[in-house]
Amino acid sequence: MWRDLAPIGRDEGTHGYRRYAWTAADSDCRAWFRDQAEARGLTYELDRNGNQWAWLGDPLAGDAVVTGSHLDSVPDGGAFDGPLGVVSSFAALDELRRRGARFTKPFAITNFGDEEGARFGLACVGSRLTAGQLTVEKAHALRDGDGVSLPRAMEAAGYDPATIGPDPERLARIGAFIELHVEQGRALDLSGAPVGIASAIWPHGRWRFDFLGEANHAGTTRLADRRDPMLTYAETVLAARREAEIVGALATFGKISVEPNGVNAIPSLVRGWLDSRAADQASLDMVVAGVEAAARERAELDGVEVRVIQESFTPVVEFEHALRDELARILTTGPRAAAYAGKPAGEPGERTGVRTGEGAGASGAALTSLPVLGTGAGHDAGILSGSIPTAMLFVRNPTGVSHSPAEFAAEDDCVAGVLALADVLEGLACV
Amino acid sequence: MWRDLAPIGRDEGTHGYRRYAWTAADSDCRAWFRDQAEARGLTYELDRNGNQWAWLGDPLAGDAVVTGSHLDSVPDGGAFDGPLGVVSSFAALDELRRRGARFTKPFAITNFGDEEGARFGLACVGSRLTAGQLTVEKAHALRDGDGVSLPRAMEAAGYDPATIGPDPERLARIGAFIELHVEQGRALDLSGAPVGIASAIWPHGRWRFDFLGEANHAGTTRLADRRDPMLTYAETVLAARREAEIVGALATFGKISVEPNGVNAIPSLVRGWLDSRAADQASLDMVVAGVEAAARERAELDGVEVRVIQESFTPVVEFEHALRDELARILTTGPRAAAYAGKPAGEPGERTGVRTGEGAGASGAALTSLPVLGTGAGHDAGILSGSIPTAMLFVRNPTGVSHSPAEFAAEDDCVAGVLALADVLEGLACV
Repeated sequence: MWRDLAPIGRDEGTHGYRRYAWTAADSDCRAWFRDQAEARGLTYELDRNGNQWAWLGDPLAGDAVVTGSHLDSVPDGGAFDGPLGVVSSFAALDELRRRGARFTKPFAITNFGDEEGARFGLACVGSRLTAGQLTVEKAHALRDGDGVSLPRAMEAAGYDPATIGPDPERLARIGAFIELHVEQGRALDLSGAPVGIASAIWPHGRWRFDFLGEANHAGTTRLADRRDPMLTYAETVLAARREAEIVGALATFGKISVEPNGVNAIPSLVRGWLDSRAADQASLDMVVAGVEAAARERAELDGVEVRVIQESFTPVVEFEHALRDELARILTTGPRAAAYAGKPAGEPGERTGVRTGEGAGASGAALTSLPVLGTGAGHDAGILSGSIPTAMLFVRNPTGVSHSPAEFAAEDDCVAGVLALADVLEGLACV
Repeated sequence: MWRDLAPIGRDEGTHGYRRYAWTAADSDCRAWFRDQAEARGLTYELDRNGNQWAWLGDPLAGDAVVTGSHLDSVPDGGAFDGPLGVVSSFAALDELRRRGARFTKPFAITNFGDEEGARFGLACVGSRLTAGQLTVEKAHALRDGDGVSLPRAMEAAGYDPATIGPDPERLARIGAFIELHVEQGRALDLSGAPVGIASAIWPHGRWRFDFLGEANHAGTTRLADRRDPMLTYAETVLAARREAEIVGALATFGKISVEPNGVNAIPSLVRGWLDSRAADQASLDMVVAGVEAAARERAELDGVEVRVIQESFTPVVEFEHALRDELARILTTGPRAAAYAGKPAGEPGERTGVRTGEGAGASGAALTSLPVLGTGAGHDAGILSGSIPTAMLFVRNPTGVSHSPAEFAAEDDCVAGVLALADVLEGLACV
């Protein structure tokens, strides 16, 4: 399965993947999905928003158990982010058939379209449309870097864009959605477990900091006469790191725009974007307030004006507790409980956001613990959690690297992920 | 004179000037120069490198006294940088004629082409070609942002590019070149004098700092696992300011380039350019070494690699001492000496780079002092100083702002500049 998927959309130079929505590489991935579905006798279906489904049993019967992820990538992304969840879904079905498990509920595997948002700048377009979290008008207005609109891109790939829009009937027939995903940090690696359960997606936001100074000649303007916004920006970058460290959160300045951006010109404007995420809203507020205060304090010294604009904000997504606890119960009481749990955590939970299955409300009958961790990244499961019960399983990524070819999961851990997903599906949908 | 020149190439939105070499605005400025020359009965001449000359007396007689500057501008530049020197040259001639002064040497007013280098990226092209500091091959290779080469641009403006090249015979016939220029800092304003004499053009250079880290997901990568080059860059920016303050030099990070420059991506590469200038080589070396040391120290902490590349370097240009001292003698012993000197300096000389006429070696007969100041900016006079005796006069700029519409000189100070230039020309070329 991996072997057929691996070369699609891989850049020979960077070894990173470039599988962007509605491109040729995306079409190849979609053809692979359909082949996998048909090879297993599943009923293939493309929904009104271009998401792919592979059904076992009657899709209309209701209370379906669904698992899957996405096949698209960020620019020069790794092999695991997305595909591991889809491949593991098919492998888990194979495992359940090997075990002779019989499904008592309808079951489906999905590939959600355009999760990464690499082409049109908005993540989770397929699941957002389905869940009614992206209006048709806004979807029509999405454009890629070449000015091609989403509907035109879908059309060019042979899909009918006229049908896109919310799909509440489809969601109403799903009882549970489970997404398996490679971890995008090192929490599992630090806790020693090959798999873990998601507790929540951290609240996160983007803030644009505009530092307004005065353009001047870098070769003639006395230091005392300068109003140099680059200095204020620099102090703010360092403050973001300090504030995040204090609170145990994340804060990053990764994007900057400077005017006039000339070697011999003191800038008139430095624009920096803060990406910040934390385990809870109060921590996030504290980080952003701290960064802004440091920026304003330094701005006073530099004679610079600061404007802070919140460009986006996503509140915390708590995965449904009942489903999450059911996953913890299944994985901590079954025959493979010890293998999933790994060795005891070597790092304080607060630092990595890792709790254990019991602490997260798992059954008192739990024999072993299982990491329950928050994540700073968005997922289709997070989008769908507003409409249906969803849960996530993470597979250990020893490098902790994400959105890069260095992203990794060991074969043993991938196998543990498949077995854990099979156990969960068996517990939820089989007898 | 000003009234006719003022509207040429002025942007109605920014009120800044956009007079780039060999454009329509440049042609209009050149037509203005020719009109001014002919209105005064001067012999107009265009040299082989597109520089304009207006001669009084025989250009071939030798030991000519020449004054002038340039009429082109940086993008959205001010009204004074360049044009003040050309306008003051014509006005000084008018003043000398009013005084009834008789020239004993050939005299010329010049407009050097493409001083700012706004279009082709290299400053002082007209004077460099003439002085043989720019080869014809390299000049032919210059291209503007639209890919138009310098020869094609000259052709399009109606000039023959086949003639460009060194012009040593022309330079050999010049005994002294004086350039009057608006000051590009606040040294005169702080010393209280309306005019000053240039001592030197500071040594300056550009260093590219490459900070190499590791691209990663800003939403999932633990702070401890990051190799974020933006942090190293930020610390280096602040270090540049500190080091420059300690030494009394200038250091600026005004240009940056980031990869991948995404809001949710820890950068893999941050590239920043340091522009640094100081009154002497030792000070400049100290600043750059200090910035580099701070960058490497912080890089260790951040797990980032630093590479420093010197992209350009111009050693100190000391204006000829004999000519500079002659200017100081003329201006500090004449009838307007007190007016030129202004009030005593209110700031230590080391801070502003300002010395006084006596300190700079002016005649012991000096009754008053006159500021003698270094400058961080390049000038045609600096280029020509390698071939012929050159000197510069500065006119007070109370805002200290340069390369911006906020650049300014008061009318009284402009008049003082004209009178000082007339006094100098009278002393050098008249009886």
